[in-house]
Amino acid sequence: MTSLPHASGRRADAQHNIDAILDAAVENFALRPNATLAEIAKAAGVGRVTLYGHFASRAELVNAAMTRVLEQGDAVLEPLELDGDPAEALERLIGASWRLIHQSRSLLAAAQKELSSARIRDLHAGPAARAERLLARGQSEGVFRSDLPASWLVATLHNVLHGAADEINAGRLKPEDAARTVSLTLLAAFAA
Amino acid sequence: MTSLPHASGRRADAQHNIDAILDAAVENFALRPNATLAEIAKAAGVGRVTLYGHFASRAELVNAAMTRVLEQGDAVLEPLELDGDPAEALERLIGASWRLIHQSRSLLAAAQKELSSARIRDLHAGPAARAERLLARGQSEGVFRSDLPASWLVATLHNVLHGAADEINAGRLKPEDAARTVSLTLLAAFAA
Repeated sequence: MTSLPHASGRRADAQHNIDAILDAAVENFALRPNATLAEIAKAAGVGRVTLYGHFASRAELVNAAMTRVLEQGDAVLEPLELDGDPAEALERLIGASWRLIHQSRSLLAAAQKELSSARIRDLHAGPAARAERLLARGQSEGVFRSDLPASWLVATLHNVLHGAADEINAGRLKPEDAARTVSLTLLAAFAA
Repeated sequence: MTSLPHASGRRADAQHNIDAILDAAVENFALRPNATLAEIAKAAGVGRVTLYGHFASRAELVNAAMTRVLEQGDAVLEPLELDGDPAEALERLIGASWRLIHQSRSLLAAAQKELSSARIRDLHAGPAARAERLLARGQSEGVFRSDLPASWLVATLHNVLHGAADEINAGRLKPEDAARTVSLTLLAAFAA
């Protein structure tokens, strides 16, 4: 469908503002999970009314920022080599996923305040599907246990990885130990 | 310090109202996580102004309701036999903890909307200390792995147990399979 140049120009402006707001949100939440919507509007170069016009609440903005960061993370994980030995591939996936979680830990902290854990899990549908393919292959090759469904192994991967971020925030785990700790835990939990 | 009978009477009234509000909150959140503060005030037989006088926000009330339910849960876990074989004791602890989590799943869903996962974990200090005693004993007896700190095993127990509630809500796990699934996962993850 064609549209009038005027309407299409307005849509382009709106998309430009949305992109600027999301970039500013990701950047500001990365610095501090308590960044205010006013600070984010200012960083995006838009007024607060414009920001609220696109994102009616803090939860909506956090949801959109998480979606963007997860899409970017998905692009980082895409070229990851997940063929070959499933246990070694799982270690690579854990290492790369952990780096992404650690980079986004402030945004994640903001998300945990605004969104339910179920919603955060739903936003991870892309990475969850990638993990499920690997875990199901490992099950069919007899490397990972088959007495529990692959979906449960995916959930456990998600929960243990994100739990590591909480343990670091609580001062009970060093960031440099996180990927190894998660790998040791999950390789034992998932072994056939 | 003695106080005037009048002031002490007012304090008793306030405590009576707080108890009624918390009882109503626990009961109403158990029925539906989206119960409103107005519904809870009505069920407690107090006005909304009185409720807000004691709990300034939904998050404060949810926090207090979670604290109460966790104290009650702690009393249920207290007589649990955790001596003897550490792996069997862990299975008993998982079974009993799971029943408590499942009973409180609506309150937990409300809490996950209002409180950070770190705050929810902090509220579990009592059950976490009980689990840590058992896990550390299992480590010293060579039944549980010692290459990871007991605090990490406690965090993993917490995250996998609560993750099971999310999996049930998402329709990926049957409630009757939860305790067994969590036990199978953690006994393998924690084995020496």
